[in-house]
Amino acid sequence: MTDHHVIFMPSGKRGRFETGTPVLTAARQLGVDLESVCGGRGICSKCQVQPGHGDFPKLGVTVRDDALSAFNAVEQRYDDKRGLKPGRRLGCQATVQGDVVIDVPAESQLHKQVVRKAASGVPITMDPATRLHFVTVEEPDMDAPSGDLERLKHALSAQWDLTGLDMALPLLRDLQPTLRKGKWEVTVAVNHDENRITALYPGLREAPLLGLAIDLGSTTIAAHLCDLSTGAVRASGGVMNPQIRFGEDLMSRVSYAMMNPGGDLEMTRAVRDALETLAVDLAADAGIVANDIVEVVIVCNPVMHHILLGVDPVELGQSPFALATSDALRIAASEIGLTSLSAGARVYILPCIAGHVGADAAAVALAEAPDQADALTLIVDVGTNAEIILGNRDRLLACSSPTGPAFEGAQISAGQRAAPGAIERVEIDAATKEPRFRVIGCELWSDHPDFAAATRATGITGICGSGIIEAVAEMRMAGIVDAKGLIGSPAQVGTSRCELVGRTHSYLLWEDGNRRIHVTQGDIRAIQLAKSALYAGARLLMDEAGVDTLDKVTLAGAFGAHISPKHAMVLGMIPDAALISVTSAGNAAGHGARMALCNRAARAHIETLVRRIEKVETAIAPRFQEHFVAANAIPHATAPFPHLMSEVTLPDVSWNTASEGRRRRR
Amino acid sequence: MTDHHVIFMPSGKRGRFETGTPVLTAARQLGVDLESVCGGRGICSKCQVQPGHGDFPKLGVTVRDDALSAFNAVEQRYDDKRGLKPGRRLGCQATVQGDVVIDVPAESQLHKQVVRKAASGVPITMDPATRLHFVTVEEPDMDAPSGDLERLKHALSAQWDLTGLDMALPLLRDLQPTLRKGKWEVTVAVNHDENRITALYPGLREAPLLGLAIDLGSTTIAAHLCDLSTGAVRASGGVMNPQIRFGEDLMSRVSYAMMNPGGDLEMTRAVRDALETLAVDLAADAGIVANDIVEVVIVCNPVMHHILLGVDPVELGQSPFALATSDALRIAASEIGLTSLSAGARVYILPCIAGHVGADAAAVALAEAPDQADALTLIVDVGTNAEIILGNRDRLLACSSPTGPAFEGAQISAGQRAAPGAIERVEIDAATKEPRFRVIGCELWSDHPDFAAATRATGITGICGSGIIEAVAEMRMAGIVDAKGLIGSPAQVGTSRCELVGRTHSYLLWEDGNRRIHVTQGDIRAIQLAKSALYAGARLLMDEAGVDTLDKVTLAGAFGAHISPKHAMVLGMIPDAALISVTSAGNAAGHGARMALCNRAARAHIETLVRRIEKVETAIAPRFQEHFVAANAIPHATAPFPHLMSEVTLPDVSWNTASEGRRRRR
Repeated sequence: MTDHHVIFMPSGKRGRFETGTPVLTAARQLGVDLESVCGGRGICSKCQVQPGHGDFPKLGVTVRDDALSAFNAVEQRYDDKRGLKPGRRLGCQATVQGDVVIDVPAESQLHKQVVRKAASGVPITMDPATRLHFVTVEEPDMDAPSGDLERLKHALSAQWDLTGLDMALPLLRDLQPTLRKGKWEVTVAVNHDENRITALYPGLREAPLLGLAIDLGSTTIAAHLCDLSTGAVRASGGVMNPQIRFGEDLMSRVSYAMMNPGGDLEMTRAVRDALETLAVDLAADAGIVANDIVEVVIVCNPVMHHILLGVDPVELGQSPFALATSDALRIAASEIGLTSLSAGARVYILPCIAGHVGADAAAVALAEAPDQADALTLIVDVGTNAEIILGNRDRLLACSSPTGPAFEGAQISAGQRAAPGAIERVEIDAATKEPRFRVIGCELWSDHPDFAAATRATGITGICGSGIIEAVAEMRMAGIVDAKGLIGSPAQVGTSRCELVGRTHSYLLWEDGNRRIHVTQGDIRAIQLAKSALYAGARLLMDEAGVDTLDKVTLAGAFGAHISPKHAMVLGMIPDAALISVTSAGNAAGHGARMALCNRAARAHIETLVRRIEKVETAIAPRFQEHFVAANAIPHATAPFPHLMSEVTLPDVSWNTASEGRRRRR
Repeated sequence: MTDHHVIFMPSGKRGRFETGTPVLTAARQLGVDLESVCGGRGICSKCQVQPGHGDFPKLGVTVRDDALSAFNAVEQRYDDKRGLKPGRRLGCQATVQGDVVIDVPAESQLHKQVVRKAASGVPITMDPATRLHFVTVEEPDMDAPSGDLERLKHALSAQWDLTGLDMALPLLRDLQPTLRKGKWEVTVAVNHDENRITALYPGLREAPLLGLAIDLGSTTIAAHLCDLSTGAVRASGGVMNPQIRFGEDLMSRVSYAMMNPGGDLEMTRAVRDALETLAVDLAADAGIVANDIVEVVIVCNPVMHHILLGVDPVELGQSPFALATSDALRIAASEIGLTSLSAGARVYILPCIAGHVGADAAAVALAEAPDQADALTLIVDVGTNAEIILGNRDRLLACSSPTGPAFEGAQISAGQRAAPGAIERVEIDAATKEPRFRVIGCELWSDHPDFAAATRATGITGICGSGIIEAVAEMRMAGIVDAKGLIGSPAQVGTSRCELVGRTHSYLLWEDGNRRIHVTQGDIRAIQLAKSALYAGARLLMDEAGVDTLDKVTLAGAFGAHISPKHAMVLGMIPDAALISVTSAGNAAGHGARMALCNRAARAHIETLVRRIEKVETAIAPRFQEHFVAANAIPHATAPFPHLMSEVTLPDVSWNTASEGRRRRR
């Protein structure tokens, strides 16, 4: 008998192979997911496998101890130099000698699955565009002259069956020294999404390559630096979008570009510089050099998209809101000023859906996959510009809504971005009207005796987005704020924490010596505007879809994970739904970016999906204005919110005093 | 009878078409070469034709006066606004109504032929990579949002059947304003060699696009600015290669790069700046803006090639002379610093043949087409580095030879580049040893009574390449210089023009007050080194080919047109051949660049042809050294030069005096 049963686990793929077949060869023939960078030369160790022993009755085989060939010289040398774990073999060296069950450990699988921490959304299966290929290149021959690049391409064709590869000019500069340093052995990073050589390393490169997934928001820029082999996040971070100095929201930036010749390019430079700095800083955090970053995925709204690309966003500020380009983009990192990355680094930008619904919305759709669900899902990506998606596998609608930066702590008197010291959770006792809160960086509530000591280092510096949402909702539940959003007087509310500041009342959340943190009437108004825009957008999509109830609501956004569903609904940020069906997805746009970074198929999927998404333009819909006005009340002027009311009781108070009435009439 | 004979001239293509068929449609169906930018909308006027009238017995048809439809409104409007020549019709408007013979005038042909001025070489048939396409783009629709770029691509697909087009990021910036300025009608420049949009113009663009053909030599950079529609040269010019300050010949520049870290990039910047300046200056000469240049073709030797691309040329300075890349390159003009051209301008660089045989040699092969001839042809492209090609349709060999810059007037005591005032022709009376000469910018010989007046403006400033070649050859024919290259004493030669300068003699060519122009012994030695290298390279190829005689010799190079074949052969620059078979081709490399600019097929042809050319490496061939030493004599130490001797008599003089002998022995 010259052939044997070979069964790979965990896939269960099986076949019959002749004596002497290398395990890697068998795996490839069966389509088993087994990694190899060196192409079977026994040097990269990526193809490690673990043979089983003894009886496997369910599989119908018995594995003898000599089912694989004995350790050969290559394996021995590798084991001596680097050490193989007990029982492990190199798949390219060990050959089949009998029936065998072979376990492919997770780290040897090319298509590893990376589980997402957030409650919802889809896990990532690793299938990055960029992969490493080790090749031996023919040395130059004076009698048969050809370029080093042509011989490198020949090697990639002969040894990896890769043909028609492009390579950018800046890499050509590195080619000759790299080939010589590696003694004609090099590891080539190939971006398979673009069929392009993107980096070259002398000899065998063992360190993983890195990719950067960026969520470029109007107010904040968040990024994850990911290992392109395992999908692991090596560093995460964020910075404020420096364009804020040109305008807080999108339309004020478009106006800046319209009013100031060259103003759009100023903003382009600012955001490109910020991305470059963020990349370098994250690389430093991860202990690598930015030069190891070979791929970037960016998601952003259309205005950020155009400004980043160096396109004047003026058309996005006026009907019909025409995008310069809507398709996904594949460009050189250097084209958008990311010059510290690998010389051949590429950028993938997700497609835009419409003039006001951008690549960030596409990324949210990718991350939350409503198109794969039966449940009618509303996804709200909360930010300075909110992306809203409604639908299920039958139909998908999307719009964006200009909420402004209040949810991110801007335009709030004590507002700040989410950082240690920021108030992020608030509770107000309905009887005493006394608050307690928690700050970022401390697990204790403010009424705990150790709280002062525990927060001494960070201090209590302000209120972040989730904090202001909870504060306003709690004020409504405690009867401090009425349905119209008015803060009552000390007499009306019954607490001295309601202080008259100027002509309106503010609620004192915290004071300590010289610092007092209030929720002011202006803060409430800012939150009302923001939440009305969000609600109106969601309702508009429900109108378009012809539905009145939702199966599922997902709160996403840079701080989406931190928003309490109950408080969001008390505020009326989202239409009424069973509280249990409202979940937080965290930064879904950022997760979508990471999916597109780690999985090529995700790119193809979103590029197809965006064509199916029906776009709804809020800026010109009369119904949007109606919904917006009705949504100004907390939670809503007319909608009954039955699910919410079954869980909370909202005091029926009204502080619409003569004074307030007079001011309105002026 | 509803169909009619339609015959197009000069092609003679004929077919039968139904009444009412537009002439342009008939032409397209028959594959007749008839231009159209607007795609048949009656606005570009490129498709003008001239119907015949009366009997055409040879063609077997009689054309009645109403064989084409009457002038329609579109033609009338065009004629009113711009005027149609008498008898002319717009091919897209005039329809077939009877048998008709239609003449397509030269200016309406897309594939016009451009005849070359030089004696040899092939004419250019216009088929440029870049063509203009007028399209009407759908306006954006908020209810079916898509990017302007996507709608532009859709229009190009629907109206011109162009699909899969790329467009670079910088053009995206122009897209939205251009579409709106043109009221959704734009003319798109498409580079069909790369399937890429390279420029956008509002409305119908009537002005032609321009391309730049550059011959980037070690010493001089020459360029032609060409109309991409007619092939006409709109401006020509040249500058010194600024890299000369880093070293006069290629190897000294490679040394500079090796000795000075970052030195290669200094040279890269210098040459890129020079090309950019040259492009801007030529555009100004032609009365256009550089922004109308959409394509550049560059030919150069491998060292220039690498430095231009930003690749350290160090590997080209040492065996095995490995090129970083040998294939033709298609890159963005901005990638090599040509930022004044059209934002989407592209550069095509011809393929290199080997480490010492570059894209310039490929261009010479393209221009001279030895692969299409039966005659065994030697092509010598004279420059600081000479490109030498030998062969015919059966076999082609090539090498390069480091002649140094002496032939270009450098390393010559009174040497200068070819410019007004430079001595370019020399004759010496064999009896009196008196010279006469001509300078660039004046048709008179120096012994003409009006010469002094005629050259007063330019002065007599030095000797250029062709001048020094003639001077040395004339000195040899007049018995002033012996076969070994030694200048005789006044007593030996019998003229006081032979003056002792230091320890050797110089021949006084001209004096005027404070300026004296000599041919020094050092000049002779420099020319001997240069011509020996040239001859040795040619002989090496003849050895490789196993031939002793040549059917045809072509002298090419930036100043190839100015070299006198007789003088070149007296000098022994080239192997012996019938003088009548030696011709000058002018700047063949530059012409090859222009061919690749004006004709896409030329690119495909040279990319295939270079693979067939056998490369001979002079740097390591022992026979090259032997040939070089034997070629030091004028014309040669051992070769009999029978053809030359049948036409000229060389005095059998020898000035190898004791003094010279002593110096040599030291």
